[in-house]
Amino acid sequence: MLSKTYTKYIQSLHHKKVRDTEDVFIAEGSKVVMELLKSAIFSCQQVLGLQQWLQENENSIRKYYAGPLQVIDNFDLEKISSQSSPNQVLGVFKKLTKTTVTAKGKISLVLDAIQDPGNLGTIIRIADWFGIPSVICSNNCTDMYNPKVVQSTMGSLGRVQIMYTTLAEWLQKNDTVHIYAAALNGKNVSELKGLKEGIIVIGNESKGISDEIMQLCTEKITIPKKGEAESLNAAVATGIILSHIFP
Amino acid sequence: MLSKTYTKYIQSLHHKKVRDTEDVFIAEGSKVVMELLKSAIFSCQQVLGLQQWLQENENSIRKYYAGPLQVIDNFDLEKISSQSSPNQVLGVFKKLTKTTVTAKGKISLVLDAIQDPGNLGTIIRIADWFGIPSVICSNNCTDMYNPKVVQSTMGSLGRVQIMYTTLAEWLQKNDTVHIYAAALNGKNVSELKGLKEGIIVIGNESKGISDEIMQLCTEKITIPKKGEAESLNAAVATGIILSHIFP
Repeated sequence: MLSKTYTKYIQSLHHKKVRDTEDVFIAEGSKVVMELLKSAIFSCQQVLGLQQWLQENENSIRKYYAGPLQVIDNFDLEKISSQSSPNQVLGVFKKLTKTTVTAKGKISLVLDAIQDPGNLGTIIRIADWFGIPSVICSNNCTDMYNPKVVQSTMGSLGRVQIMYTTLAEWLQKNDTVHIYAAALNGKNVSELKGLKEGIIVIGNESKGISDEIMQLCTEKITIPKKGEAESLNAAVATGIILSHIFP
Repeated sequence: MLSKTYTKYIQSLHHKKVRDTEDVFIAEGSKVVMELLKSAIFSCQQVLGLQQWLQENENSIRKYYAGPLQVIDNFDLEKISSQSSPNQVLGVFKKLTKTTVTAKGKISLVLDAIQDPGNLGTIIRIADWFGIPSVICSNNCTDMYNPKVVQSTMGSLGRVQIMYTTLAEWLQKNDTVHIYAAALNGKNVSELKGLKEGIIVIGNESKGISDEIMQLCTEKITIPKKGEAESLNAAVATGIILSHIFP
């Protein structure tokens, strides 16, 4: 059984403030934990798993991780998990040091105030699918280490560089690169086919791209609408845009 | 203040079993409730809203709905809401009678065991964006009247016909129409550009398309991968496929 103190410690990592102070985050579920261990980018501090899961996976875990393996039961797992259906294992990983990226010579994804953790995680997974090396988030985007973000990246967190920054400043620093705003009444997204360098800006789920950022964009791109829905989900729009750049 | 009995009644509608027996469902939030009222497809039985919201919206509501408007306070709303951040209003609507659709002469979307309510809602919203008239769900898909599905359709629920059925039987009945399986190692999705008739099958979030259904498909289509992620989210994949059919 887990100690009360350690249980409370893991629970406290559900909150950004504590993750920031402690400089660690939690990842949950067999797939995500294994992918982060394999990535060799994140240093793991602790793996807490059901006995059967640890037995079945010990050999593969030990290829990537030499630290403590803590056996827990379902009761412990439910207490420390942030999920409604906890999945066998939880890992405590060290956060990455902050990175700085530039936009030169590649496709970059810029997120302006993405609030939904599921959307951010899904967008990181999409970036990984299309081989986008970096995602630049405004400081008011949801935290990349939120357990729901980590969960919905499905392990892609270790393969995409994520930078939080003052977006306007970053865009101004990279002003030799064309900046495309995902918005209504722009150029058809299919015209981006084969683009080799460019910044794609995705806006907030309900408000879209903020005025300040929109003014820095050089062109609007649009996913043609044939029906009645007012908008598309932000992650879906991101996937569509990238799929037209890399057909 | 809401009566205890009515509070419990609304809460019970968070569960499929009760929705099925009562033949009603709940929709939440200003946008979704207003869209469903406007759609004129769903008959509304009750609107429960914060006083200010009801005052501000009474005129528009009364264009579409003559029934009871119940004033509630934040405390009531939190108790009856299925959301972690309840949004001003909740409506009780009658479920639609079951519909039957065919695949002839159009693009149809078929969902094989989509489990996540957010995914189903987002897919319905995508169908509405691209003007897809009908979505055919296997009987083991999550319930279209689940509050999270209703929420994530963002009002599109009233504009897309949704049919639950034994998928294999339905596909066999529509066997003059080409059936495309979204899967790995298929034809590049961009080759579907301009397709006028076809059935697109999207599989379960972790298991993909079941063997039984895959055998009935005539062709596999694939979203080319440039990076490392193992898969794309089901709703994102749906959006990408439809965006290449309707560029």
